Amino acid sequence: MLEPDVRLSDVLAAQARLAPYLVPTPLQPSPAAREALGGEVLLKLEMFQPIRVFKIRGALNRILHLRQDGHSGGVITASAGNHGMAVAYAAERFALPATVCVPEGANQAKVRAIRRLGARIVAAGEDYQAASEHADRIARDEGLTYVHAYDDVDVVSGQATLGMELLVQPQPFDAVVVPIGGGGLIGGVALAIKRHRPEVRVYGVAMSGADSMVRSLAAGRVVSLPEVRTIADGLAPRRPSERTLSLVQRYVDDIFVIDDEDLYRALHLLLFEEHLIVEPSGGAALAALMRHGVRRFGQRPVAVLSGGFCADDVLRRVVQLDT
Amino acid sequence: MLEPDVRLSDVLAAQARLAPYLVPTPLQPSPAAREALGGEVLLKLEMFQPIRVFKIRGALNRILHLRQDGHSGGVITASAGNHGMAVAYAAERFALPATVCVPEGANQAKVRAIRRLGARIVAAGEDYQAASEHADRIARDEGLTYVHAYDDVDVVSGQATLGMELLVQPQPFDAVVVPIGGGGLIGGVALAIKRHRPEVRVYGVAMSGADSMVRSLAAGRVVSLPEVRTIADGLAPRRPSERTLSLVQRYVDDIFVIDDEDLYRALHLLLFEEHLIVEPSGGAALAALMRHGVRRFGQRPVAVLSGGFCADDVLRRVVQLDT
Repeated sequence: MLEPDVRLSDVLAAQARLAPYLVPTPLQPSPAAREALGGEVLLKLEMFQPIRVFKIRGALNRILHLRQDGHSGGVITASAGNHGMAVAYAAERFALPATVCVPEGANQAKVRAIRRLGARIVAAGEDYQAASEHADRIARDEGLTYVHAYDDVDVVSGQATLGMELLVQPQPFDAVVVPIGGGGLIGGVALAIKRHRPEVRVYGVAMSGADSMVRSLAAGRVVSLPEVRTIADGLAPRRPSERTLSLVQRYVDDIFVIDDEDLYRALHLLLFEEHLIVEPSGGAALAALMRHGVRRFGQRPVAVLSGGFCADDVLRRVVQLDT
Repeated sequence: MLEPDVRLSDVLAAQARLAPYLVPTPLQPSPAAREALGGEVLLKLEMFQPIRVFKIRGALNRILHLRQDGHSGGVITASAGNHGMAVAYAAERFALPATVCVPEGANQAKVRAIRRLGARIVAAGEDYQAASEHADRIARDEGLTYVHAYDDVDVVSGQATLGMELLVQPQPFDAVVVPIGGGGLIGGVALAIKRHRPEVRVYGVAMSGADSMVRSLAAGRVVSLPEVRTIADGLAPRRPSERTLSLVQRYVDDIFVIDDEDLYRALHLLLFEEHLIVEPSGGAALAALMRHGVRRFGQRPVAVLSGGFCADDVLRRVVQLDT
């Protein structure tokens, strides 16, 4: 088993850094989900973040830490969209130049939002991994600081603040269900929850077409997929990092796998009954509860709705969906 | 000029009562609105309230005050939907029986949500005014406490807490733009803003097909419209109350009038660029900025997006709108 290198003190430092900039997101019971699922569910609403996704926690923490250390140069990242928006937002906030390498075929609304935040866009490679390698090269050539989307202590610690918020709110819960992409969010949240309340179960949700974390857990080492296939662009890296795998090995109780069709059903419920726009990646936790049955997770699980920046065509399809 | 009977001490009492139950909603700059309008705008996001609309502030304050006074009987109200959801939510929270009289033809998604919160529904009359008179009769017959949607010191004081939240957040603003229905929200917000920062402008937005507040201001007394016509069901009472008119006379700088078509354009921008579902009433402030020009309002106005419980058919139309 790998040894995690993210410490609770990193998470507390992230909390202190983010407090002046981000307000805690709401945790709300959902009468509509209760009716549909036959059990209580609490929704953690990350689409209320300024850029509509949790990624702002990690990126802002990383850039605030760089500033504390006296760094004032440019930053670069690779991202299918959400982390790129987060880096662009944080960089604009402190007037740092930012570059975002996006895969060709990235969500155009996200690319537009990144540009609106003042970042330079470089379209590079056919998927996240290829864009990431391209960003590495530019970082070396231009002397920029690379802000990794998940393989970074500050980024994981920033995402962990979501777990810390759950711990100090008054509503009882016995499980937390979190979507898995590269593993930064679930790694951070699981660390925060398990180190404080080990009796609370932490479950991940992976897409059947992008289940590198499931395979990596089974193999006991990082496994790369030759390709990934899912509408959930935020859950589609081809592999986790050793850092995030180590956190999942240590702190996550189980991973549930779902399909794209499960996501559409969850997004439809959230749109028409909870009046929330949720993007495919962001609906994975509720989709898992709907597919596998709420009782498998707990008496009162938290479903982390990790983001709401839904592509126009997906939103149109969800609106037209006849369930 | 009428004399307002809502005091700042009522607002502070509302803040104290609501603090354990509601978290402040975010105030966020909108790069997309900045691009569309050519000027800075801050969005106050009331759709992040548990029932997706600001009305929860006033209804919860009223019911908490009733409890403080030892009242434990049933409550009743009349509402086109949002205030009814708010009363049902607050009553369920404290296990009080609730009755909501809704106009026939009310938004069915809202009626479903009210029922899901455990309230008794009575369909009565063709519009809000008729439902309200019916609720009055039931209240007398059954000994229920009537919680008025806007003509109530506790309700106005509860809505005023939105203004108090604006005053203590760090982002500068020089105007606040608020939709006008019965006048409870703008009355409360204007009181809170003007008593603390009289230099900040407070503007109302009324629908051309439901402009009873504009006509009442001009006449210097409450004017009832024979009928109202707008898709903004939350802005469609036929008349304000003397209480809300007195607050608007005293504290509101001006009122801008818009049409339903202006609302659709604003909802489309919010849906596809800000990834927020906003209901017609909730989009009125941004619609006024888009129609009349942001410079008419200030250098950095706050647009209060008062709610996001959008009817299914309106949402479908907004999605299909070609702007």
